[in-house]
Amino acid sequence: MEPDDSPELRELYEGFEREHLLPLWTQRDDLMPFSPKPQAVPHVWKWDRLYPLARRSGDLVPVGRGGERRAIGLANPGLGGNAYISPTLWAAIQYLGPKETAPEHRHSQNAFRFVVEGEGVWTVVNGDPVRMSRGDFLLTPGWHFHGHHNETDRPMAWIDGLDIPFSQQMDVGFFEFGSERVTDYATPDFSRSERLWCHPGLRPLSALQDTVSSPIGAYRWEHTDRALTDQLLLEDEGQPATVEQGHAAIRFMNPTTGGDVMSTIRAEFHRLRPGVRTATLREVGSSVFQVFEGAGAVVLDGERTVLEKGDLFVVPSWVPWSLEAESQFDLFRFSDAPIMERLNFHRTHIEGNAR
Amino acid sequence: MEPDDSPELRELYEGFEREHLLPLWTQRDDLMPFSPKPQAVPHVWKWDRLYPLARRSGDLVPVGRGGERRAIGLANPGLGGNAYISPTLWAAIQYLGPKETAPEHRHSQNAFRFVVEGEGVWTVVNGDPVRMSRGDFLLTPGWHFHGHHNETDRPMAWIDGLDIPFSQQMDVGFFEFGSERVTDYATPDFSRSERLWCHPGLRPLSALQDTVSSPIGAYRWEHTDRALTDQLLLEDEGQPATVEQGHAAIRFMNPTTGGDVMSTIRAEFHRLRPGVRTATLREVGSSVFQVFEGAGAVVLDGERTVLEKGDLFVVPSWVPWSLEAESQFDLFRFSDAPIMERLNFHRTHIEGNAR
Amino acid sequence: MEPDDSPELRELYEGFEREHLLPLWTQRDDLMPFSPKPQAVPHVWKWDRLYPLARRSGDLVPVGRGGERRAIGLANPGLGGNAYISPTLWAAIQYLGPKETAPEHRHSQNAFRFVVEGEGVWTVVNGDPVRMSRGDFLLTPGWHFHGHHNETDRPMAWIDGLDIPFSQQMDVGFFEFGSERVTDYATPDFSRSERLWCHPGLRPLSALQDTVSSPIGAYRWEHTDRALTDQLLLEDEGQPATVEQGHAAIRFMNPTTGGDVMSTIRAEFHRLRPGVRTATLREVGSSVFQVFEGAGAVVLDGERTVLEKGDLFVVPSWVPWSLEAESQFDLFRFSDAPIMERLNFHRTHIEGNAR
Amino acid sequence: MEPDDSPELRELYEGFEREHLLPLWTQRDDLMPFSPKPQAVPHVWKWDRLYPLARRSGDLVPVGRGGERRAIGLANPGLGGNAYISPTLWAAIQYLGPKETAPEHRHSQNAFRFVVEGEGVWTVVNGDPVRMSRGDFLLTPGWHFHGHHNETDRPMAWIDGLDIPFSQQMDVGFFEFGSERVTDYATPDFSRSERLWCHPGLRPLSALQDTVSSPIGAYRWEHTDRALTDQLLLEDEGQPATVEQGHAAIRFMNPTTGGDVMSTIRAEFHRLRPGVRTATLREVGSSVFQVFEGAGAVVLDGERTVLEKGDLFVVPSWVPWSLEAESQFDLFRFSDAPIMERLNFHRTHIEGNAR
Repeated sequence: MEPDDSPELRELYEGFEREHLLPLWTQRDDLMPFSPKPQAVPHVWKWDRLYPLARRSGDLVPVGRGGERRAIGLANPGLGGNAYISPTLWAAIQYLGPKETAPEHRHSQNAFRFVVEGEGVWTVVNGDPVRMSRGDFLLTPGWHFHGHHNETDRPMAWIDGLDIPFSQQMDVGFFEFGSERVTDYATPDFSRSERLWCHPGLRPLSALQDTVSSPIGAYRWEHTDRALTDQLLLEDEGQPATVEQGHAAIRFMNPTTGGDVMSTIRAEFHRLRPGVRTATLREVGSSVFQVFEGAGAVVLDGERTVLEKGDLFVVPSWVPWSLEAESQFDLFRFSDAPIMERLNFHRTHIEGNAR
Repeated sequence: MEPDDSPELRELYEGFEREHLLPLWTQRDDLMPFSPKPQAVPHVWKWDRLYPLARRSGDLVPVGRGGERRAIGLANPGLGGNAYISPTLWAAIQYLGPKETAPEHRHSQNAFRFVVEGEGVWTVVNGDPVRMSRGDFLLTPGWHFHGHHNETDRPMAWIDGLDIPFSQQMDVGFFEFGSERVTDYATPDFSRSERLWCHPGLRPLSALQDTVSSPIGAYRWEHTDRALTDQLLLEDEGQPATVEQGHAAIRFMNPTTGGDVMSTIRAEFHRLRPGVRTATLREVGSSVFQVFEGAGAVVLDGERTVLEKGDLFVVPSWVPWSLEAESQFDLFRFSDAPIMERLNFHRTHIEGNAR
Repeated sequence: MEPDDSPELRELYEGFEREHLLPLWTQRDDLMPFSPKPQAVPHVWKWDRLYPLARRSGDLVPVGRGGERRAIGLANPGLGGNAYISPTLWAAIQYLGPKETAPEHRHSQNAFRFVVEGEGVWTVVNGDPVRMSRGDFLLTPGWHFHGHHNETDRPMAWIDGLDIPFSQQMDVGFFEFGSERVTDYATPDFSRSERLWCHPGLRPLSALQDTVSSPIGAYRWEHTDRALTDQLLLEDEGQPATVEQGHAAIRFMNPTTGGDVMSTIRAEFHRLRPGVRTATLREVGSSVFQVFEGAGAVVLDGERTVLEKGDLFVVPSWVPWSLEAESQFDLFRFSDAPIMERLNFHRTHIEGNAR
Repeated sequence: MEPDDSPELRELYEGFEREHLLPLWTQRDDLMPFSPKPQAVPHVWKWDRLYPLARRSGDLVPVGRGGERRAIGLANPGLGGNAYISPTLWAAIQYLGPKETAPEHRHSQNAFRFVVEGEGVWTVVNGDPVRMSRGDFLLTPGWHFHGHHNETDRPMAWIDGLDIPFSQQMDVGFFEFGSERVTDYATPDFSRSERLWCHPGLRPLSALQDTVSSPIGAYRWEHTDRALTDQLLLEDEGQPATVEQGHAAIRFMNPTTGGDVMSTIRAEFHRLRPGVRTATLREVGSSVFQVFEGAGAVVLDGERTVLEKGDLFVVPSWVPWSLEAESQFDLFRFSDAPIMERLNFHRTHIEGNAR
């Protein structure tokens, strides 16, 4: 439909430029593609490359007010040098040296931590100290003050996940400094949030108001592991329990609503039996996985990459993906699915079935 | 406003009767009182009177198809000889002898069991065997098949709670016979429902659809006890956790929504520290309590009654009530509050404060 | 299962009686029938019998504080002399003589008026005068002050619908007297509620909070009639618009939610083309219909009754019903369906299809 | 906190780059500002500059398959040459010559039209022809087929609003071509959607399922005007009806839920009395206004611009804005508020009060 070049047309286009206008007809394909064409690309980050760089940062870069965190963001190669793992999500390794404290602050951005290995750090959320240990999933929802401190003589590293790219693109973020030291250096085994909320099916009568984000500060590995184990045992008994044959999975939820833990971020844990290959999916929205335990591979847009403990990968919107398990294969996953669902853009397409 | 008697008026009233009419002006007070005037009365049933009658029924009355259950309903003295403990609720002692089976059936009525003492019976809910032990709270929501069987050589008794009066008054009930024997005589420690759902904050990915009633078959005493213990410990630490000073409480909830376990019945567990006296409340809707452990008293409409383990009492709508704990005092409570809240009739009035 | 009579059994049953207990096994059939067995019966009230009695009441019975309203309730013959048209619903003719005022009061019970004929009365709801005219449906939701006054020299009668039986059985009702005269004798054509809310698809920015009941004081016949007319015209054009062939219907809704006008009462308007016969339905819950215009018949549990303008009939729970239209046939309907749906007891069965 | 430059640090940063990593500590300020720092800038587009360019496009650029629409997007000067009026919203002038047709297509993006002047075009939405006239607000929600055709001998222009930038940034968009001609060239006064849904407070019984987007194809100026007029009259009578003194406003809503018309776009209409100056607001999220009638000014971040009929302006996130009315001043507004609210990022700050 693009008309032939002419002096009149050129004059018209100059008029557009002068008045801050852009015609649809020259760029409809880009603005409205037939299916999502993400600039973000599928990518795998190897833990054995990331961790040494994080450790080296521990030697060279102090942690404190201003920079706030010794966190190193995974930058999607397709997103032009921004520290975005996808258009919505931020993922980073955070590293805290022996006895160090990362100061308290709060921000509109929703955040979580996932601990692939180690222990000894406590995150203090609105004054409630939360132990961080291997396999735990911890929340610091939007506008909750939080800081971290390492009680031990060993460093500790973990994964931070946030909705920073979404917040930055959408201009929704507020930020505020808090205490330079954490407000409570106690090191209890369990946070007050867990003692109040982590009793299955029981709700404190003192907290009947639903909350936007989950009130649970930490989802413990012990529970996650048992839930996945039970699903596979139930499958063995011929009961419906798993997502697909040999594939157990749980979603971390807000116990006040049964919904996602935070309004922009979904978090799940998946376990595959050895030899299982999942169905190939395309989904609107982006996901990040981290291998927690075991060996296997991911097929991203047809390309297969072998995965080991700690490896991370991103699945941009509508990119086909599947997993293959060599051993029992445990993966943590987070995504922007609540955004897609709340705004009614979610769509899923199953390309094929597991073997 | 009632006019004086006259032949004309009498003729009018005869016309009303003939045409199945009744004037408002002669009965406005009854139809629309200034505040709820329940026919149901506050009443206490003593466990040491109930239990022997239940045991005696075990000797004299068989259990089986037709009568269905050896259940003995608590009949509110104000409700004219119906087996209603309140206008909405049914409460009964059910008694099952050694090796007996109560056959399977299903009905629209929502039901639960609460076990004040004993063990050895399994309830089979839609084919899933659920162990019954002291302190457990078990669900058989509307239209779920269920039967009971006693695996042991000792009898067992427990409390049944249902919305039978509501269902009967409102004409909503359907009923269907199932298997004469239960469909699965297995005696697992944990039901499949618990293995799928009783991991705090974790939702199976295979069950993302919300359900009208809780999918949890049994809420175990171990969890309830720990939740209440934790609330009192948090209170000791100066943290907000209890309903009022010295009064811990949890509500049993549907994990898919964070709301009540069933659409007509709320269930809670309360623990008072020794010496605590609760605020006096008036609430729209009716409640039933059973003492699980400890000694204390209830004040119902100004009248104080000493309570021991197993004793039950009913609080009709808008009757003032408070509890007093001599020892640590544990009580199970159920009510029709979801009806009142869903239809926007709930109201609470705090008459005074403890001590 | 009922055991044989014996002295021991008689002693047991005496024990039950002494302790306010009732066994399930002797009355399971009654308490839990296989399908709803309402005590309420289907019944038709003829307008030409009701109206003269209402008019006669106008001669003999004053209206004022205490009796509050010259309202005559339709008493279901199966409900033992209570002014209940069904276990949940109250329906009455209210009659207001020339220049009379019915004083203001408020109550928890939800109420509406439907005007089968006449005009000249204003209902004042929380200070907002609402004109009453033929075909209008007016709301006075729970705890809203309301009174009526007749501006004219002619009497006026209309239908009141409330949830009095439900409120009385469930012990939820509060009542309060207000002004003896209405608080505003203005006679505007449209209430303030309509001027704020009756613009299709438009919500005032000053009223973004959802309300439990509809904020609309009157649903005007003009709109109802046009909506039904449009549905039949769309059907003529081959478009989906009607419930079944020749059967147009609208539901009155709360514009802040799209749901029912009040939490206990649903209201609808139905129009049948001449010759149409509706499918035979069974529904959980009870309904009341009033013929607004036209001639036809209702078949209630197999029994056919001819209907004329103003005639009312009640359909108890699970009683099969269908309508037949001789002329164009307009009917107003109200029911307790929101109770059934909110508590998850709703069920519908279509017995047959229209010719 | 940024450490001093050193060979070791440079080596570390090179490692980051190699592994697609970016440290937080060098860019925390940008990623997480203290309050939203939009790249988008406040900007005003004058109708008397836009319209001539649109008309000239009508001479030079054909409309048809491929380019799809003769639409000219307003490009925010701060957004780097993209046709984004804000990070979430697209606004364009669309121009259709005499007897022209814009072909049918559908896309995930939600769209609307607002008609500042003219008439004679019909938009066909899923086969339903919708008349476009001055002051009307029309919907083409995501994945609804739609095309336009001009029945007259005069051209027509209007405003298109979509969530294209959001969809493109978030990778959620799908697109599909439909018929090259519209599927129905009928020119009814009212669409079928209006005939079914535009009866205030009435819901068709044939459409009880709630819909993600409003089922109303066109919100007519006649209704909008009357609603605003009524609010100001109510204000004159001392009744609560307006947002602030002299400022009437309505929100276009989905009648099935009472919520916004589409999941990403809010639309409102505002009317100021002559002389009124609104409070200065800051809001999270971006808005676009178009003057429909009257004269006045906008103050954007302290800078005042005089406005006339047809002028458009954008308010980026957290930029303070207020309006001043010289004459009666009518403005159409749309925004991304549903995104902000559904994801819990909404915040409003009132800077001062009028006058």
